[in-house]
Formats: sequence, structure tokens, C-alpha cells
Amino acid sequence: MPEPAEPVEETPQQVAERSAQVMLAGDRATAAMGMVLDDVGPGYAVVSMTVRPDMVNGWGAAHGGLMSALGDTAFAVACNSFGEVTVAAGFDVTFLAPVREGDDLVATARLRSRSGRSGVYDVTIARRADAPDREPTPVIEFRGRSRSLGRPIEPGATH
Amino acid sequence: MPEPAEPVEETPQQVAERSAQVMLAGDRATAAMGMVLDDVGPGYAVVSMTVRPDMVNGWGAAHGGLMSALGDTAFAVACNSFGEVTVAAGFDVTFLAPVREGDDLVATARLRSRSGRSGVYDVTIARRADAPDREPTPVIEFRGRSRSLGRPIEPGATH
Amino acid sequence: MPEPAEPVEETPQQVAERSAQVMLAGDRATAAMGMVLDDVGPGYAVVSMTVRPDMVNGWGAAHGGLMSALGDTAFAVACNSFGEVTVAAGFDVTFLAPVREGDDLVATARLRSRSGRSGVYDVTIARRADAPDREPTPVIEFRGRSRSLGRPIEPGATH
Amino acid sequence: MPEPAEPVEETPQQVAERSAQVMLAGDRATAAMGMVLDDVGPGYAVVSMTVRPDMVNGWGAAHGGLMSALGDTAFAVACNSFGEVTVAAGFDVTFLAPVREGDDLVATARLRSRSGRSGVYDVTIARRADAPDREPTPVIEFRGRSRSLGRPIEPGATH
Repeated sequence: MPEPAEPVEETPQQVAERSAQVMLAGDRATAAMGMVLDDVGPGYAVVSMTVRPDMVNGWGAAHGGLMSALGDTAFAVACNSFGEVTVAAGFDVTFLAPVREGDDLVATARLRSRSGRSGVYDVTIARRADAPDREPTPVIEFRGRSRSLGRPIEPGATH
Repeated sequence: MPEPAEPVEETPQQVAERSAQVMLAGDRATAAMGMVLDDVGPGYAVVSMTVRPDMVNGWGAAHGGLMSALGDTAFAVACNSFGEVTVAAGFDVTFLAPVREGDDLVATARLRSRSGRSGVYDVTIARRADAPDREPTPVIEFRGRSRSLGRPIEPGATH
Repeated sequence: MPEPAEPVEETPQQVAERSAQVMLAGDRATAAMGMVLDDVGPGYAVVSMTVRPDMVNGWGAAHGGLMSALGDTAFAVACNSFGEVTVAAGFDVTFLAPVREGDDLVATARLRSRSGRSGVYDVTIARRADAPDREPTPVIEFRGRSRSLGRPIEPGATH
Repeated sequence: MPEPAEPVEETPQQVAERSAQVMLAGDRATAAMGMVLDDVGPGYAVVSMTVRPDMVNGWGAAHGGLMSALGDTAFAVACNSFGEVTVAAGFDVTFLAPVREGDDLVATARLRSRSGRSGVYDVTIARRADAPDREPTPVIEFRGRSRSLGRPIEPGATH
């Protein structure tokens, strides 16, 4: 008689990748905005997006609220990367430089602190430079406040 | 020979209405999200939106960043209502209750304080009740920080 | 044989006054800064303070962090006014105008929204005018995020 | 006849040290709270403080506003470290864990982004552990928004 299969122990990196996959599979908002997940790890996520013509406001600049949605998605992937369903309690945004149609943006989210079920994550949104040897320019600083619901991330999870 | 027309003195309410019209005429982001301007006045704006299927995140709730974009538009209309091109320096958002697909949201923005070129505006986003005699439920509190550029709002203005 | 005394039903105003009294009785920080409670009610508090020489920073202006402590006390009285021990989860501060030594400040806190155990309170800190017929000038806008611990306020309560 | 002395070119580190010295020389608030500058560099500052009995609130915990004043001082030293008079436009604070009388706190401020005259600085306030081999515990996350006034820091500078 065969022994029961031992449960496979996931590494933190595997938990992060699986959590992002489950979460983004059902995320129609992120897909509709054309966001792409570039990287994910424990407490970490990189998400990129190009500013489309339908994301521009009345002054010819990118709509600040929509740009914050990019930060919010990177924050969501990062704060869910530990395998527990985690939601945003709130966030704060500072606009550093205007963003224009056609800009290539990349949002990098990192865990800053956790205590109990609460967490603080920092997301820098930067504009990719035209030349490959130039650094991206930070355009928005986003700080997210998260709250874990204490439930494991699995297909079909909701909040 | 006819005398030159005297310049017409606008009332503050007329300035607010004209500014909103100029600003929203070119605001493709606001139009793409289906937002509707319900009311505007000096330092005041009401904007409504229904949560569409493409605004929902991976946990079956409305994408917080996109919901903040509704607050950001109400804030933008209110802080531009005095006839000067005014941009967001930043904002802070607190999520009070989950929002779902199909919810009818209304964002009410009001000036809280101004000093020099800086302003603070509060926006409450509430979910309209099904029954006409019930009060809307606040779901998001948004606080915007604005900065006037000192230029009059007129067709073709940019920042 | 006398009947047992019926429990006295407090009004919301009485709950607010008793809660403030219990809380401030042990608040050495508030006393050390010379803050005075001017008024309290359900979801509401007014606290005043004069800027002392030992509250001034290196640029000859009032220390912004210390001025925020005035807002924090008004917020604490307001969010504890419903009779449950309630703590700050965080706050955001915007500085509108410089504050100087000798300025008479008054902080007015009001509940903005509550949902479950979470609350949002707005505090305006204003400088009292020299002339009695002039309005105070807003100098700081403070927004507090509160969390109730679900325990009644009574002498000796801690968190 | 002696040649005129060539102007001495300061290093960024020397500018940071001199700026902190000038600024803190007149900062009575920071001195009154017992804060000590442990380290400073370009865009960087470390300030420590012990929680005194007169910094405790009505629930037996450290007064959140006063603790934020520690973060505000570290932020001020860091954002003035480039040699230009720089003031706070605002800040946001998240409380992660309670702080008690007698706790040894250390606030570490670092520049996150600058653009034109605006800057964003992050300050972590941590409680020093009793045992020398244990890491400090983060208790407060503070994010400051700065604005340079474009004037050099020199003795007697004000804003």
C-alpha cells in the first residue's frame, strides 16, 4: 500500500508567485488598464503600464487617480505575496512630476513594515527613459496601508 | 459706431460651471470611466459613477485605485472651480466598506481650507441605497491637496 | 427594604463628557503641553493651546510635530466620545500657514465617517485673531484614522 | 600682499553636518523633548529619544502626536541636509505598535524622492531592544512631504 503523499512545502518565492497568479486571474480592472506583472517576490512586486489616450485628463496630463490605480495594483500584489488574503485599508499619494500620454510607467512595491495584521508598503512609480542607459524618473510616490484577513489565498477566495 | 461690449462680470457660480465645462471637455479618462458631473459650485462638486465589471479586482471587489479615481475627478472639478488652473499635489484615501460591481457611487467634494496657492479638499464617496428613502452609505473618504498654477482656465489650457 | 437603584441611562452628551474626563485625567502629555479642553460632544471636541517658547524649531516657527500633537489630542477626545476605548491607527497633516511663538491655537475635531470599528475624524487647527470680530485663520488640517478596541471607557482603562 | 583665501568647497557630508548644527542650535522644541542627533548625512538623519512620564496619554501609552514629533525632527534634519532652508508641507503617520514610558526610540529618516523643490522622506521609528543582539522593533512609520524655500542655510535663517 502506497504511503500518502507528503504535503509539498512551498518556498516563500513560490507562495508569492502562486498568490499573484490566483489574484490576478480574476482581476479584470488590472487587465482592462493593460497592466503587466513584471516581477513578484515576498513583499515585493513590479507592475508596468503604458499611459493610453483614454487615461488623460482635461489638462492634457495623465489622470492622477488612474495613475494611482497602477500603484494600488503593485501594492496589492506585494501585500498578498505572503499567501494570506490582504486588503487595502488606505493609501497616500504624492505627485512629483507630470505624466503624459505614451509614457511607460513602472511601479515597484516593497514591504516597509508589518505588525500583526497591519502592513505598510511603499510604491515608487517611475517613467522609463527613452535611452536604455538612463535611469527611470520617479513621478509618483505611493504608500499603502494593508490589513490581512487571516485567510489563505486559494482559487475562488473573495473578501 | 457701436460701443465696444462691456466685459461681462461672471458670478462665482458661473465661473465654477464654465471651469468644469472647459476641464471636462478634454477629460477622456473621466469619460472612459462613465463618470457624470451632477453638480458644481465654488469649491464644490458632485460626480457619480456605476461600478462596471471591468472595474473589479481579484477578490471580487471594486479596484480601490479605480474608485479613488472617482474621488480624484470630483476633487479636480472642485479645486478648479475658482477659475484658476489647479493641479493635485497628492491625496490620501481611507477605505471604509467594500464596493461591489453594479454599485451606484456618488462622490461629493468640498473645499476645506485654502491658503495662498495651496488647498485641502474633502471628498466622501458614498453608495446610493436601493430604497429612495434611505441615506447613501459612505464607503471611501478621500482628502486631496491642491496647488494652483495661477493661470486662468480657458479653452486649450494645459499644465 | 429599599429597591436597588435603577441603572441611570446616560445621554450621548453625558457619555462624551464622562469619557473625556476619564481619558484626560491620566493624560500627562496633554497637561504638560498646556492644552485645555474647551468643548466636547458626541464625535466632537475643541482643544486650545498657546505656543510656548519651548515649542519653537530651528527656523523660528512652531515645531510642526508638536502642533500636530494638539490635533492628535482633539482627535483622541472626539473619537473616544462614544464611550469605547479608541486608539489612533494613523493620521495625516497638511501645513497651511506658519505658526509662531505666542499664537493662540484652537483645534476643532469632528467625526467624518464611521464603519464598524474604524473611523475618520477631521481636525482644523486655527490661529485665533487678535481682534474679537475677526475669524480664526486655519493653519493646519489634520485627518485622523481611529480604531475602537470594543471596551467601555472607565477609570483605569488602558490599551 | 596675501592672496584672498579661496572659497572652501564643502563636501555633501560637511554641508549636511553644518546644516544640522545651524538648525538644531535654535531648535528649543527638539531640546525640550530630550532628542539627540545620532547621525546625519545627505538626505539622511538618525534622532533618538526616551519616552518620559510627561509624554504619556490617558490610556498609559505614549502620546501619538508627541511620538510623531520625533519623526518630524528626523525628517527636518534630513530634508535640510542639502544646505537649503526646507520646510514641511505635511506628513502621514501610521502607528504599528504601542509605545510605553521608558521606551528608547530611534527615528531613521531617508530621502525617498526629490523633484524640483518638493521632496518625500521616509522615517521609521523603532523601539530599541533590551538585549544588544536583538533588532529594534518598528513602532511608527512616518512619511514627510518637504518644500525647499531656495535659500541657503546660514546662522540666523528663518522661514
